Amino acid sequence: MGALHAGHGRLIEAARRESAVVAVSIFVNPSQFNQSEDYLRYPRPLETDLAFCAAHGVDIVFAPSVEEMYPQPQLTWVDVTRVADHMEGRFRPGHFRGMATVVLKLLQIAQPERAYFGEKDAQQLAVVRRMVKDLNLPVEVAGVETVREPDGLALSSRNQYLSAEERAIAPRIYAALRDAAELIAAGETSAEAVRRRAEAVLAEEPRMRVEYLEIADEDMQPVEHITGPVRVAAAVCVGPTRLIDNVRCVARGSVGT
Amino acid sequence: MGALHAGHGRLIEAARRESAVVAVSIFVNPSQFNQSEDYLRYPRPLETDLAFCAAHGVDIVFAPSVEEMYPQPQLTWVDVTRVADHMEGRFRPGHFRGMATVVLKLLQIAQPERAYFGEKDAQQLAVVRRMVKDLNLPVEVAGVETVREPDGLALSSRNQYLSAEERAIAPRIYAALRDAAELIAAGETSAEAVRRRAEAVLAEEPRMRVEYLEIADEDMQPVEHITGPVRVAAAVCVGPTRLIDNVRCVARGSVGT
Repeated sequence: MGALHAGHGRLIEAARRESAVVAVSIFVNPSQFNQSEDYLRYPRPLETDLAFCAAHGVDIVFAPSVEEMYPQPQLTWVDVTRVADHMEGRFRPGHFRGMATVVLKLLQIAQPERAYFGEKDAQQLAVVRRMVKDLNLPVEVAGVETVREPDGLALSSRNQYLSAEERAIAPRIYAALRDAAELIAAGETSAEAVRRRAEAVLAEEPRMRVEYLEIADEDMQPVEHITGPVRVAAAVCVGPTRLIDNVRCVARGSVGT
Repeated sequence: MGALHAGHGRLIEAARRESAVVAVSIFVNPSQFNQSEDYLRYPRPLETDLAFCAAHGVDIVFAPSVEEMYPQPQLTWVDVTRVADHMEGRFRPGHFRGMATVVLKLLQIAQPERAYFGEKDAQQLAVVRRMVKDLNLPVEVAGVETVREPDGLALSSRNQYLSAEERAIAPRIYAALRDAAELIAAGETSAEAVRRRAEAVLAEEPRMRVEYLEIADEDMQPVEHITGPVRVAAAVCVGPTRLIDNVRCVARGSVGT
């Protein structure tokens, strides 16, 4: 969606290492925003993005208009059930339908051999992976690790909405997720206990409102008893800005990868 | 779905004329059948179908098992709204979702330049055309005219379910559609009047039960006032066997093609 930052840079670098031709799509997709969401104010610094792509050795930038992507009323939609049901899917109704549909469109247009997605949006990545398998799309999906500020805040185009004060407290999200992951690594198997701990860390800061904090399996299903690899994922509103983040962790003694 | 007949033969012939390599998929897709429908008894004469393909100069037959097409639970579904809402979509809930999804899968697997569909299934063809446009699928969709028995009955794999008596009365479906089309060509603009006429033709035969008889525009939306090109489409149960058929017609004085 543009407003490129070092997290996107990491995606491009991975693609650059592994590919003869690297294409970047920049498209703020209206169909994945709720009406109440920030579609109109979402940043669109196209000139800066193009310079960023040039500096990273990108061969092709595809930055279509809304009319080019949706020349007629869109009647066809892709639904990925189950994987998209919880967390972001629950709090942003229609988001994954719009995202999956536009990703499928972009994949059909560009026909890449590999497509790179960031792990910061872990559920989005899981939805795309499932769609690609279920629909036999001839593309390999590559997940790329989250890039963080030195204080731990995950890079996001929405970070620029934060006031100085909000920015100062935002790293608490990652701190809470890290605490949760450590608890799990130390042997805690109750998701409820892990959630309570992480939520306590976030509750110390009154300007934060937790939308969800879940421990989910690789299919993005919330678990109550932690027995294998899980993701601790959260959406937290910092003032008016909604941020998401997640960490992957493995229960002590489980057969993780 | 196999059980190939001269209608499919016409699709293959068209593809053969226009293409270097012709592939045929044969797959009785469970996800497009309702539970109450005829999935289990649908004919699967694979040996005969392969001979038919060989005789028609087909290069590749793709006849996967259900496990090959659905190796894991299918969580991803393609919905084409509006075009799929009426007629078949109304009387076979879930049918077009299953059909569109499997067609998309087959197109991704085979990656053809052109895909051929019969006009007998006019709404299916319209759904596929819309899906291809909406999802930017890099394929050209070709519609091929319905092939009929000398007495007018549209060829269908389900015709073999008909008893001799049922077979004898089945041509009345096409006769009713033709009557309707003639009425429209003669200037009738009321869909209600056209429906009454066609239903009267069908009502003369007590072993026929009309499921729907609609006058629809090119987007498969039922119209009440006929002003342009339309399709008269019907689903009729002949004894226990459900048959569909349609004819295209142009209102007198309208700007048709």
